[in-house]
Amino acid sequence: MEKIVLKFGGTSLGTIDKIKKVANIVKNRKDKGNSIIVVVSAMSGVTNDLKEKANSISKNFDDIELDTLLSSGEQVTSSLLSGALNDLGIKARSWLGWQIPVLTDNNHTAAKILKIRTTEILKFISEDGVAVIAGFQGITKNYRITTLGRGGSDLSAVAFAKFFETESCEIYTDVEGVLTTDPSMNKNAKKIDKISYEEMLEMASLGAKVMQPSAVQMSMLDDIPIHVKSTFSEKSGTKIISENDIDNKKAVTGIAYSKDNAKISIIGVIDKPGVAADVFEPIGENNINIDMVIQNTSLDGKVANITFTIKQEDLKKTLNTIEKNKKKINYKKISYNDKLTKVSIIGAGMIASPGVTHKMFRSLANEKINILAISTSEIKISVLVEDSHTKKAIKALHTTFKLN
Amino acid sequence: MEKIVLKFGGTSLGTIDKIKKVANIVKNRKDKGNSIIVVVSAMSGVTNDLKEKANSISKNFDDIELDTLLSSGEQVTSSLLSGALNDLGIKARSWLGWQIPVLTDNNHTAAKILKIRTTEILKFISEDGVAVIAGFQGITKNYRITTLGRGGSDLSAVAFAKFFETESCEIYTDVEGVLTTDPSMNKNAKKIDKISYEEMLEMASLGAKVMQPSAVQMSMLDDIPIHVKSTFSEKSGTKIISENDIDNKKAVTGIAYSKDNAKISIIGVIDKPGVAADVFEPIGENNINIDMVIQNTSLDGKVANITFTIKQEDLKKTLNTIEKNKKKINYKKISYNDKLTKVSIIGAGMIASPGVTHKMFRSLANEKINILAISTSEIKISVLVEDSHTKKAIKALHTTFKLN
Repeated sequence: MEKIVLKFGGTSLGTIDKIKKVANIVKNRKDKGNSIIVVVSAMSGVTNDLKEKANSISKNFDDIELDTLLSSGEQVTSSLLSGALNDLGIKARSWLGWQIPVLTDNNHTAAKILKIRTTEILKFISEDGVAVIAGFQGITKNYRITTLGRGGSDLSAVAFAKFFETESCEIYTDVEGVLTTDPSMNKNAKKIDKISYEEMLEMASLGAKVMQPSAVQMSMLDDIPIHVKSTFSEKSGTKIISENDIDNKKAVTGIAYSKDNAKISIIGVIDKPGVAADVFEPIGENNINIDMVIQNTSLDGKVANITFTIKQEDLKKTLNTIEKNKKKINYKKISYNDKLTKVSIIGAGMIASPGVTHKMFRSLANEKINILAISTSEIKISVLVEDSHTKKAIKALHTTFKLN
Repeated sequence: MEKIVLKFGGTSLGTIDKIKKVANIVKNRKDKGNSIIVVVSAMSGVTNDLKEKANSISKNFDDIELDTLLSSGEQVTSSLLSGALNDLGIKARSWLGWQIPVLTDNNHTAAKILKIRTTEILKFISEDGVAVIAGFQGITKNYRITTLGRGGSDLSAVAFAKFFETESCEIYTDVEGVLTTDPSMNKNAKKIDKISYEEMLEMASLGAKVMQPSAVQMSMLDDIPIHVKSTFSEKSGTKIISENDIDNKKAVTGIAYSKDNAKISIIGVIDKPGVAADVFEPIGENNINIDMVIQNTSLDGKVANITFTIKQEDLKKTLNTIEKNKKKINYKKISYNDKLTKVSIIGAGMIASPGVTHKMFRSLANEKINILAISTSEIKISVLVEDSHTKKAIKALHTTFKLN
């Protein structure tokens, strides 16, 4: 019997009727003779509601208690789905993180799975049972509940596929699959049939919401093929697989974007070795992530401007940090812009298509969109533009790279 | 340091503001130097909401999954309250049933606590920590979650008081304490300062809602004094203690009532040994509880009528059972009335006050209230009356026995 992992997200389990629908999907797969491990998220909205409750109790709500609190959401859906499967005459039971156990490190709210015990669940599914796993959760060796961070039940699904050596890992969600871009930004967005781990990782990291980067990364490291599909349609979805298994590599597979970027320019610093370190060291120490960096030197080579981008939410903290270190950095002034979007084109075939970079810039120039910063990797090019240009930029690039 | 158990019910934890209030109550007690174990219920409404969800998924929702589902409610309040205590600068942590563990039998949805491990919690509270226990829940030796049935967090509180040998067990609720009767039935209801276990057990069994009978029974068996008090006032509440510790035993301490009784009369059965067994055996086999029983024999001693009372919700099932056994029982006809209330007077001093019975009947007769059935024990007298007479009966008895 083929062992498979089926993961259902919060929007697929958001109501009693949807839970019943999911039970029927699982039953169909069971009837086809599969050994099934189901991984569930909390009902949509529940995790945020619990977070808000914690937040209204304390702005510094304890991380360990927060994990205990949040893990209750998946406890609810795993037991409800098991009950729904029982009602269809299917042997099923729920497993919570501690019952398995899913052992994690003690990095609460963003824990890493170290080990999953398989004995009991393997026995259960080999005896015709469906195991329903509460995703997103584990325990430390001290028996405290941990959660895996944003999108953690995707991570749970991939980890179960890995530790149980299943044939496949299917992520059921409320969209058809991975799309060339966000359909709310461009109605011509098309479903991608196959995408490589690397491309998907870039897409997810750069703003595509269908899967969390950490889950994609884990599937890439262990070469666990993922199949993203819709709970609400029979369509074929998107396969996330090894680049070697993709025949026709397009130059550009998809376009991602992320809002909420801010750009800071430190103007008039003395251009000498170590100045960048003087700027970025205190920022890093404050746990602020730097994204893009540009350093311009003046013609005489004596004065430089350092420009970099960060998450908009970190702007205030970053400006404070720089001002505190004004003496050490020795700059003239600071300017910033916090209404910027990063638009990225992603494609594993890019490296073999030399024209991609200038095509991208020409396409944006034709639309009179000013590029404020650029960063590239082997399989993506990101540009920073004004928020107001986002839709126009995506539309132009979608046409230029023949994704329509 | 005095060890105490403080238990807070769902109405005391129903909102974020109430949880903060409870945290302040706990802090006050901590500041006075107590070692504190807090036991919490789920937020009011949550357990019923989860039950409804299970019920809309399946009319026969699996008991084990139901327990997993329901236990999430106390998981939420225990972590929220711990977070609230941390926010007040108090060292506190939540403990779920499985983390302690609270070992129960495997009678899911109504499990019995067998053992509570104390080591870790004792260490924590002796090191100035407040232990916040998710009430209502335990685990079987197979690591499945159990719940303790209706009012289960009261049971948890008494069990923690027992296993940790605490000085007291305080039940915080939304009323001032135990009242002489339901104030919605008689606005003259007064708070009782002290009540014996036995009296409280009868009060609770006969309809008073402030504590569940099973929790009172457990406190009685282990002589664990309980102090019922309000979360929302500073008043002194009610002490539930051993009868020996009560000086002035009143003939009648309180008046309880329960609606939803039904009375069935089986008319014209042959009066021979074994006839009552023929009637009640099949009913018992269908898990229907019989409350009061009256057997009248005709003057010639040949024909009898058997009358008994049951819960209204069991009426249909009981009638079906009797009709199925018509041949064996051999009766003429059945009559029934399903709109009846049982009104009970309770008092440990009753046994020393011979006039109580006739005073009760006279008081009801004066109000022209017909008594349909009677049952008595050493410390209570219950009468069955028409639903419509309930308020009038309680008012009359409240005056007759000087409870105003």
